[in-house]
Amino acid sequence: MPSGEDDLITRYFKPLATAPGALGLTDDAAILQAGGDDVVVTTDAIVAGVHFLPDDPPDTVARKALRVNLSDLAAKGATPAGFVLTLALREVSEAWLAPFARALGEDADQFGCPLLGGDTVSTPGPAMISVTAFGRVPRGKMVRRSTARIGDVLVVSGTIGDATLGLAILKGEGGPLDNDAARAALIERYRVPQPRIALAQAVREHASAAMDISDGLMGDLAKLCDVSGVSAIVQANSVPLSEPGRAWLARDPGAIARLVSGGDDYEILCAVPENRLAAFEAAARSAGVSVSVIGRIVAGKAAPRLVDAGSREIPLQRRSYSHF
Amino acid sequence: MPSGEDDLITRYFKPLATAPGALGLTDDAAILQAGGDDVVVTTDAIVAGVHFLPDDPPDTVARKALRVNLSDLAAKGATPAGFVLTLALREVSEAWLAPFARALGEDADQFGCPLLGGDTVSTPGPAMISVTAFGRVPRGKMVRRSTARIGDVLVVSGTIGDATLGLAILKGEGGPLDNDAARAALIERYRVPQPRIALAQAVREHASAAMDISDGLMGDLAKLCDVSGVSAIVQANSVPLSEPGRAWLARDPGAIARLVSGGDDYEILCAVPENRLAAFEAAARSAGVSVSVIGRIVAGKAAPRLVDAGSREIPLQRRSYSHF
Repeated sequence: MPSGEDDLITRYFKPLATAPGALGLTDDAAILQAGGDDVVVTTDAIVAGVHFLPDDPPDTVARKALRVNLSDLAAKGATPAGFVLTLALREVSEAWLAPFARALGEDADQFGCPLLGGDTVSTPGPAMISVTAFGRVPRGKMVRRSTARIGDVLVVSGTIGDATLGLAILKGEGGPLDNDAARAALIERYRVPQPRIALAQAVREHASAAMDISDGLMGDLAKLCDVSGVSAIVQANSVPLSEPGRAWLARDPGAIARLVSGGDDYEILCAVPENRLAAFEAAARSAGVSVSVIGRIVAGKAAPRLVDAGSREIPLQRRSYSHF
Repeated sequence: MPSGEDDLITRYFKPLATAPGALGLTDDAAILQAGGDDVVVTTDAIVAGVHFLPDDPPDTVARKALRVNLSDLAAKGATPAGFVLTLALREVSEAWLAPFARALGEDADQFGCPLLGGDTVSTPGPAMISVTAFGRVPRGKMVRRSTARIGDVLVVSGTIGDATLGLAILKGEGGPLDNDAARAALIERYRVPQPRIALAQAVREHASAAMDISDGLMGDLAKLCDVSGVSAIVQANSVPLSEPGRAWLARDPGAIARLVSGGDDYEILCAVPENRLAAFEAAARSAGVSVSVIGRIVAGKAAPRLVDAGSREIPLQRRSYSHF
């Protein structure tokens, strides 16, 4: 968007480019000083009508675009260092851009992840926001997916399944909850993920493997197990649920399958060696992030199993959310 | 695109993830080892119908998506280190993806810039390819736009204006050339930029300021002058033209304004102190990249002027290409 683009960048995005290496967005590139650390790079895009609803408030769209990436950094044990933004828009609407940029700036401040650069392009299609985020870890210390070990305890942060229920409500499904505040809380969880940046150090120091849960707990766990060459067992009644999530499940017990396979949790799933669990839990408490033991890594090549209190397997028709 | 996405990534993109830090694309993030250097970050997206034509061959689309970013790295004096890719597609078509991925891999090899990670999303809109590319420079050595000095000589690489003529032909404008090979050469310049990576070291060692020319020589020069607080004079008859470009201009002398303001050159524009010019030219020769002196940085706040052999200003209706 050359000429309009320059105005737009100056007005809305330059104030967000607080890092010296962003050069005030006046250059073709930014400088990221690594200072001997490894740079952790992650990229995730969200598309209107696919990853967010076209009439979602622009401030929540901005937060989601950045936070889904911050969630990846947290799961890798990385400290945020900055991000670049590609914004593909049909038109330049002040009414949309102003709250979008303001919320993006607030999140960038809150999570210590300043804007380093970007590109804005016009598209005749739906709005798309692509973020590439950078974090730092001491050399060789990025926590991987592929290094879970048999016997490790499986731990997740926060609560699981809220976002998928929130999306169901937004899509008009209704659901069993008649409490407006509970419904609003679930919708908020869909729209605005809570990246567990505060947990990054604990993950880095204690987890043997980790990833963020974006496409459903059981599906993402299957990915982690697959690349680690292991399997896992998850206790359904240990999966942490929010108050609205529990209320929904009480009225619709079959919803457990959907809670553990729905998308957009943006919680951290990690494998922690048994002898590090107490230290991990203490670090999580210090960080103010709730964590729950949900199962264990076991030997085998089978897909991870979800079991009830009687160790009976709960069948899952699908394990993760697919946009197709 | 979770499930379809995993297949697609494995088949087409995993072979491109040759860097150890890409972790075979099996993780949520990649590791970029900076080893004490600064990391240079640049991001540019291309959209079907805006930056490339919907029926452009997929191999040229892939090359363009990566090369417009490599061009930025070259202009900043950086050595390519890797890139991440966001691919937004309406559908997964093998016929399109296979040649796209193959060409992307060839370019990644050729320019030493391996795939580190990415995201693929479905969109009901036009295809969009967003690349964030990384380069390395010794600490503090990234060449900026804002550091041109009065008296510096203006130098550009390669030839100017070919791509804008190629686009005109593709859009059915015709133009004065009846030679098919010449027309094809101009179209090729539009579709497949030649990033001047070979010139990066010379730029880093000798230029006081630099940028790549993506939106038109005179418009991009205006940006460089603006942030440097200087002005410039460009000799129209020193602007390097290709053989087809010269042939076009011979039959349509008014085209000079369009050549110096059209987009998609992806050449390097740099300001070189007079006493470094000989060394810069020698380094460019060693690198096998032609460079041409086109003018000089002068004092003032006025927009850069294009002048003819008699020092008369050639008026420009616009200075750069705008997608809006």
